[in-house]
Amino acid sequence: MSLSARVVPLDPLRTAQALARGFAQTAVARDAEGGTPKAERDALRQSRLLALAIPVELGGLGGSWSDMLAVVRILARADASIAHVYGFHHLTLATLRLFGEASQWQPWWEQTASRNWFWGNALNPLDTRTIATRGGGCHVFSGKKSFCSGAIDSEMLVASALDEASGRLLIGALPTSRSGITLHNDWDSIGQRQTDSGSVSFERVRVETHELLLNPGPLSTPFACLRPLLAQLIFCHTFLGIAEGAFDEARGYTLSEARPWFKSGAARVTEDPYVLARYGEFWVGLEGVRLLVERAASRFDAAWRTGADLTAEDRGEVAVDIATAKVAATRAGLDLSSRIFEVTGARATHGALRLDRHWRNLRTQSLHDPLDYKLHELGDWALNGALPGPTFYS
Amino acid sequence: MSLSARVVPLDPLRTAQALARGFAQTAVARDAEGGTPKAERDALRQSRLLALAIPVELGGLGGSWSDMLAVVRILARADASIAHVYGFHHLTLATLRLFGEASQWQPWWEQTASRNWFWGNALNPLDTRTIATRGGGCHVFSGKKSFCSGAIDSEMLVASALDEASGRLLIGALPTSRSGITLHNDWDSIGQRQTDSGSVSFERVRVETHELLLNPGPLSTPFACLRPLLAQLIFCHTFLGIAEGAFDEARGYTLSEARPWFKSGAARVTEDPYVLARYGEFWVGLEGVRLLVERAASRFDAAWRTGADLTAEDRGEVAVDIATAKVAATRAGLDLSSRIFEVTGARATHGALRLDRHWRNLRTQSLHDPLDYKLHELGDWALNGALPGPTFYS
Amino acid sequence: MSLSARVVPLDPLRTAQALARGFAQTAVARDAEGGTPKAERDALRQSRLLALAIPVELGGLGGSWSDMLAVVRILARADASIAHVYGFHHLTLATLRLFGEASQWQPWWEQTASRNWFWGNALNPLDTRTIATRGGGCHVFSGKKSFCSGAIDSEMLVASALDEASGRLLIGALPTSRSGITLHNDWDSIGQRQTDSGSVSFERVRVETHELLLNPGPLSTPFACLRPLLAQLIFCHTFLGIAEGAFDEARGYTLSEARPWFKSGAARVTEDPYVLARYGEFWVGLEGVRLLVERAASRFDAAWRTGADLTAEDRGEVAVDIATAKVAATRAGLDLSSRIFEVTGARATHGALRLDRHWRNLRTQSLHDPLDYKLHELGDWALNGALPGPTFYS
Amino acid sequence: MSLSARVVPLDPLRTAQALARGFAQTAVARDAEGGTPKAERDALRQSRLLALAIPVELGGLGGSWSDMLAVVRILARADASIAHVYGFHHLTLATLRLFGEASQWQPWWEQTASRNWFWGNALNPLDTRTIATRGGGCHVFSGKKSFCSGAIDSEMLVASALDEASGRLLIGALPTSRSGITLHNDWDSIGQRQTDSGSVSFERVRVETHELLLNPGPLSTPFACLRPLLAQLIFCHTFLGIAEGAFDEARGYTLSEARPWFKSGAARVTEDPYVLARYGEFWVGLEGVRLLVERAASRFDAAWRTGADLTAEDRGEVAVDIATAKVAATRAGLDLSSRIFEVTGARATHGALRLDRHWRNLRTQSLHDPLDYKLHELGDWALNGALPGPTFYS
Repeated sequence: MSLSARVVPLDPLRTAQALARGFAQTAVARDAEGGTPKAERDALRQSRLLALAIPVELGGLGGSWSDMLAVVRILARADASIAHVYGFHHLTLATLRLFGEASQWQPWWEQTASRNWFWGNALNPLDTRTIATRGGGCHVFSGKKSFCSGAIDSEMLVASALDEASGRLLIGALPTSRSGITLHNDWDSIGQRQTDSGSVSFERVRVETHELLLNPGPLSTPFACLRPLLAQLIFCHTFLGIAEGAFDEARGYTLSEARPWFKSGAARVTEDPYVLARYGEFWVGLEGVRLLVERAASRFDAAWRTGADLTAEDRGEVAVDIATAKVAATRAGLDLSSRIFEVTGARATHGALRLDRHWRNLRTQSLHDPLDYKLHELGDWALNGALPGPTFYS
Repeated sequence: MSLSARVVPLDPLRTAQALARGFAQTAVARDAEGGTPKAERDALRQSRLLALAIPVELGGLGGSWSDMLAVVRILARADASIAHVYGFHHLTLATLRLFGEASQWQPWWEQTASRNWFWGNALNPLDTRTIATRGGGCHVFSGKKSFCSGAIDSEMLVASALDEASGRLLIGALPTSRSGITLHNDWDSIGQRQTDSGSVSFERVRVETHELLLNPGPLSTPFACLRPLLAQLIFCHTFLGIAEGAFDEARGYTLSEARPWFKSGAARVTEDPYVLARYGEFWVGLEGVRLLVERAASRFDAAWRTGADLTAEDRGEVAVDIATAKVAATRAGLDLSSRIFEVTGARATHGALRLDRHWRNLRTQSLHDPLDYKLHELGDWALNGALPGPTFYS
Repeated sequence: MSLSARVVPLDPLRTAQALARGFAQTAVARDAEGGTPKAERDALRQSRLLALAIPVELGGLGGSWSDMLAVVRILARADASIAHVYGFHHLTLATLRLFGEASQWQPWWEQTASRNWFWGNALNPLDTRTIATRGGGCHVFSGKKSFCSGAIDSEMLVASALDEASGRLLIGALPTSRSGITLHNDWDSIGQRQTDSGSVSFERVRVETHELLLNPGPLSTPFACLRPLLAQLIFCHTFLGIAEGAFDEARGYTLSEARPWFKSGAARVTEDPYVLARYGEFWVGLEGVRLLVERAASRFDAAWRTGADLTAEDRGEVAVDIATAKVAATRAGLDLSSRIFEVTGARATHGALRLDRHWRNLRTQSLHDPLDYKLHELGDWALNGALPGPTFYS
Repeated sequence: MSLSARVVPLDPLRTAQALARGFAQTAVARDAEGGTPKAERDALRQSRLLALAIPVELGGLGGSWSDMLAVVRILARADASIAHVYGFHHLTLATLRLFGEASQWQPWWEQTASRNWFWGNALNPLDTRTIATRGGGCHVFSGKKSFCSGAIDSEMLVASALDEASGRLLIGALPTSRSGITLHNDWDSIGQRQTDSGSVSFERVRVETHELLLNPGPLSTPFACLRPLLAQLIFCHTFLGIAEGAFDEARGYTLSEARPWFKSGAARVTEDPYVLARYGEFWVGLEGVRLLVERAASRFDAAWRTGADLTAEDRGEVAVDIATAKVAATRAGLDLSSRIFEVTGARATHGALRLDRHWRNLRTQSLHDPLDYKLHELGDWALNGALPGPTFYS
C-alpha cells in the first residue's frame, strides 16, 4: 500500500489507524443510528489530527495534503462518514487559505490548531437560496442551505451566499454559534449517515467584512482554483478507503465463515475457481485505483507547493489526474462493494453485519457531482487537449 | 408488457395490481421496520390469490403457474418481500403435488382454497441439522433450520429432515402450530426484510406417516423435478419485478424532482444526453429480461401440463430456459437498481425514500444459490449439450 | 431457435440452409479475396429466394418479411456479406412498395420474380453530392455516392438525388446498366468484404418520371416510414446470425481442437470452469437477442399487414422494439465475436481459419449508424414516452 | 507519459521513437503482407538497440530492463510485431543470464553487442514433441516445435527439448544455422503477423554440453524464476503500446476525418457528448494501465538488481504486480481497440487503414496464456495470501 513512504513522521498515520480501529468497533451500530458521531469527533479533536495539514509554525502537525488524504483513506476503511467530515474540515481550512488573506487564515489556522476546532461546510454554490444583503457595516446572510456537511458539532463554519447587489458569490467564515444560524439536524440518507449533511437556515446572520474571503476571493486564481480539486481528492480517498474496507471485511468473512457451494467440488470455499477469479478482479480493480489516487494526491501536493506561481495549465493537468482517479475509484468501488456478496454468500446479508453499508456509503457520496460529466471533461482533454475549466466541481 | 394475454380471467392480475398499489403505500415504512407484514398477508388471504394456482374443481381460481408468477412480478414491483412469500406459498403447494400422493395434496389444496391457508417453507436440503427418527408409528423431527421463508403467520409448513436410519431426505407437511415447532422470529437481513426467513427449531416434533411426501418422493421423477424450477422461476419474477419497480420509481423521480446538471447545457434533465442514454440502457436490459422470463414461465406451464409423461430431457430444456432467464434477470436487476441513482441525482438518496431497497432486496435474494454455478450449468449445455441435472437448486 | 414455427412452407428456410452450407465452404477464402461473390449471387438467383417476400400472385414465394429476415440470419451464420446484400435486395423491393405507386412497384416486383433480378442500393440520404436537375421531360442525376451496397452485379438500382430546384430527396429505380452510371468497384473494408458497398458515379443519368417514387414518396406516411425499420431489422438479423455463426465455429473448435490449460486441473478443456462460464455467458447473451430480434420481426410483419391504416404511434412502437433488438444484438455480438478466442485458445488465431472475420464483419456493419443515438432514442421513449421520429436511420 | 524519467541517457528512447516513426510508415502494408520484416529487423540491428540491456562493460548500452520495456512500448505503438520480436530477443538474453553460467552468457552477450545478433525463441515447455538424446559427447535434439517467435532471420536461437533419459527440460543456445534446424516459415495468424512465430523442426541437431543452460538451470532459483516475469512484462508493454497506438490513430482520425452524426446537434464531432464520454473512458483505462505497467517494470528492475539474494517471496510479489498489470492491460486494450471505431465512424473501416490491426494484434498476443488463470493466481494472492508459484507462465 505504500502509505509508509511519506515525508512526515509516521505518527499521524499510526494515530489514524488506532482511531480507525476504535471507530470500526461501533461503525455498524452508528450506521444504523445515524446522527452525530460525537464521541468520534471528540476523539479526532483529542488526536490532534484536525491540525494535521496546519504548518508547525502555526501550531499544527505540518503534514502535507497527501498525509491528510491518507488519513481520510484510513478512516474511510472503518467509517466513511467520519472520513468525510474529517476531509471536509481540512477542505474548509484550505478554502480560508486559498480564497482569503493571510491576516485571515493564519489566525484561524492557529486557533484551529490550538483549540482543536472542527470546521463545518456550508458552501454550496449550486444552492442559491441564501442571499447576502449589505447594511450596518457588514453583510447579512438570509436563506436556507442544503447539504452542510459536518456543520453540527462544529466550532466554525464556512458559508456562502449570493450578494444581492452584485450577484457575486460571497464566502464567509464564522462561528457556528453565531446568532441566526439554525442547524436542522435533518440529515437522513441511505448512506454516509453520520456526516451531518443536513440543512441550515440563516436568519439575518451578521457577517463582518473581515470574515469574508474577498481577496483573492473564490476561484480567483489558478492557485485559488485548487480548492475544488482538494474536494475531489477527498472523494477519491474516501471511495478508495470504502472499497478497501469492503474488501477487507469480505475477505475476513470468506476466510472464516463462507462455505463451498455443494457443486463446486472444492473442499474449501477458498479454492472455488469462481471465488478466486472474483477476488482476482477485486485486486486488479483496487490496485489500479490505488496508483491513480496516490499519483493524483502527490501531484496536488506539488501544485500546492508551487503556490501563487501555479499556472492555469499546471492546475488543469492536476485536475485531469484527479478526475481520472475519481472515475476509476467510483467505478471500482461500486462494483466491488456490490459484488463482495458473491464471495461471502447468502448469510453475509445478515442485518447485524450491515455489509451493505459500503455500497450505500459509496453510492451516496458518489452522487455529489455526476460521473458522466467527469468523463465528458476527460474526453475533452483526451480528444481536444482542452484542460478542465475551474468550477466548484472540477 | 403483455401481462394481458393470459388464459385466466383478468381478475387475478387486476386484484394483484390493486393489492400492490396498497402495499406500495407502506413498503418503505415496512422495509424500515422488518418483521411480519401481517396486514398484507391477511390482505392476500382475503383476496383469494393464495388459491390462484389451485384448480377450480378443488375450490381454487384455476390459474396457471404463469398467472401465479405474473402476480409475483406485480407484487415485487411494489414489495419484493411479499412477492417472495406469496411465490413460496405456491411453491409449497407445488411441492405437495409433485412429491406426494393425490390423497395427500388434494385435501391440502382444497383446505388451502377454502380456508385461505398461507404455507411456509422449512425445506432446505443443504441445512442438515434436522434429523428424523422413527418411533411410535410416526417420525420425530428434531433440530434447527435456517432460512424458513414465510413460516411466521403461516397455517401450514413444509419441512424437511434427514432420516437417521437411511440418510434420505424426508419432507413433511404439518400445521405450523404443531407442538415442538418454535419459530424464532430472528430474521434480520439487509434486504427482503419482511420475508420472515428466520430460523425454526424442531424439538421432538411428531410427523405422521400420512404427512410425509414419500410417493413419489422428492426429486423422484422428471415431473417431480419441476419443483426446483418453480423456485427458480419465482426468483426470476421477483428479480424482474424489483427491477421494474426500481425503474418506475426512478423515472417518476427524474420526471418530477431531478434537475439538469449545470454543465449539461440541457434546459431539463429529461434532455440530458447521458440521462437519456442511461434510460436507454435500462430499457434494453429490462426488455431482454422480460422476454426471457415470460418464455421460461410459459415453457414451465407446458411442462407441467405434460405431467407424468415429462421426460428428463423435456425438464432439462425448461431448466436451461429458466437458468438463462435467472442470470439475465439478476444481472440486469442489480445493474439497474444500483445505477438508478445516476439518473435521479444526489437528493434521491434521502432516507425517507429508501430507494436503495430495490438493490438491497435483489442483492439479498440473488444469493440464494450462486449465479456462477448457473453459468457453469448453462456452459455445460451450450458447449457440451449436457442438460442440468436436477438438484434442489437447478 | 424456433425458425421452424413459420407460416410459409419450410422450403425457403431449408433452401437457405442448403445455400448457407455451400457458402460456408468458401466464406473464409472469399473474406480474404473480397470482391463480388458472383457465384453465390447467382446461386441466390437460381434458388428463387430473391422472390421470397414477393406475393404468390406476382410470381413470388409469398413469404413474410420475417421469413426473409430468417433467411438473412441463416445466411449470416455462414457469410455476413451475402446476408447483407440479400437483405438489402429486399429492402429495395420494400422501398418501391412503400414510396411508389402500385403501377410502379407491381411490375417491378413481377419482373424481379420472373427474371430473378438482384437489386442494388444507391440510396444514402446523408450523402448529398448527387443532384437531380430537370430537363427534357425527365430528371438528370449527376454526382457521386458512397456505400452503394450490392450495386455491382445487380440488374436494378434504387438511387437517390437531391432535387436542385426544391431541395427534396428524389428516389428513382433504374437499370444498373443505364447510361452514365459507373460502379467503381472500390469497396475495400476490414469486414463485410463482399458486400460491394463501393462508390457509384452518376454522369448525367437520365431518370424518367415514371421511374421516380413520388407518390406517396419517401417517409411520407407512417406506412412508408416502415422502410428504415426494415433496414434496421436486416442489421439485427445479420448481427444475430454473425454471433450464432461465431458461436458455432468456436464451439466446434473447442470440442475438437482446444486443450485444457495445464493449471486448470481439468482432464478436458470442456470441463474447465472458466471455459464453461464463458460459454454460459455466450448462451445468455444469444438467447436474449434471439427473443428480442424475433419479436421485433414479428411486430414488423404485423405493422406491414396493417398497411395504410398504420398510425405514427403504431410505427413508433415497432421502432422501439427494433431499436431495442439492435442495441442488444450489436453488443452481444461484438462481445461474443471477440471473446470466442478465450475459449478456443491461441492456435485458433491461425490465419487459415480467419476466425476474426466475425468480429470484423460485425464491427464494420454495426457502424452504419451510431449505437449511442439508438440508446438516446430508447431513453427518450423510456423516460419521456417519446416515440422515435422517422428518419432514414430510425 | 513520463518515459523521460529514466536513468540511461535519452538516446535509446529517442532512437526507438525515430525507428517507430519509420516503421509506422509501412506498418499497414506489412500487416497485410505478413512475413519477415527484414528491413526493420536490420534497422534494429543498426540502431544498436539490440544491445540495450547489455552492460556497458560487455559492449552494450547499459540500459535497465525498464528501458528495454519502454522501447517495446514505443515500438508497439507503431508495430506490435516488431515490438514483440525485439522484446523476445531480450528475453532470450535474460534466459542465458538466468539459467546459465557466467562463462556462457558473458561471451554470448558480448558477441550480441559486438555483432548485433538477433536472437530467436524456440523455448516452449508445453510443446513436448522435441526430445533430447545423449550420444557422442553431446545431446541431439529431434522433433518439432510450434510458435518459435523471431526464429527466422535470427543469428542465434534458444531452444528446449525434453531429455529422454531424465524427462527434464533442457535448454540450449545455438546458431540458427546449425545443421538439422529447419525454420518452416509457416506463421500465418490473424494478428502479430510479422513475428515469425512459425514452427521449427529439429532433425538430429547436435547441441554441445557447453551450449546447454544447466547451471543453475531453468526456474532453478528465485532469481532464475524472473525469466517468465520478463516475458509477461514484455506482453504488458506490448499491449499498452498497442492500446496507445490505437488511441493515437483513432484520435487523429476523429480530429481530421470524422463528422458529427446528424442527430447529435453538435457542430463538430469533437463536441458530441457520446464521443467525448468514450474518449474519457479510453483515457481512464489507459492511465490506470500506464501506472500499473510502469510500477511492475520498476519493481522488476529492483528484483533483478537484488540478484542471487532474491527470495521466493520477493519474486512472488513482483509476479503479483506483473499479473495485475497484465490483466488490466489486456482488458483495457481489447476494449479500446474494438471501440475506437465508435468514435471514428463507418468510414474508418476502410481496408486501406487496417485500423482493425490493433485489435487483431492484441487479441492474438493476449492468448499466449489464459487471462482467467492470471485472475485465479491473483485471487489466490488476494484471498489466501498465496504468491504465484513459478512456472514458465507466471
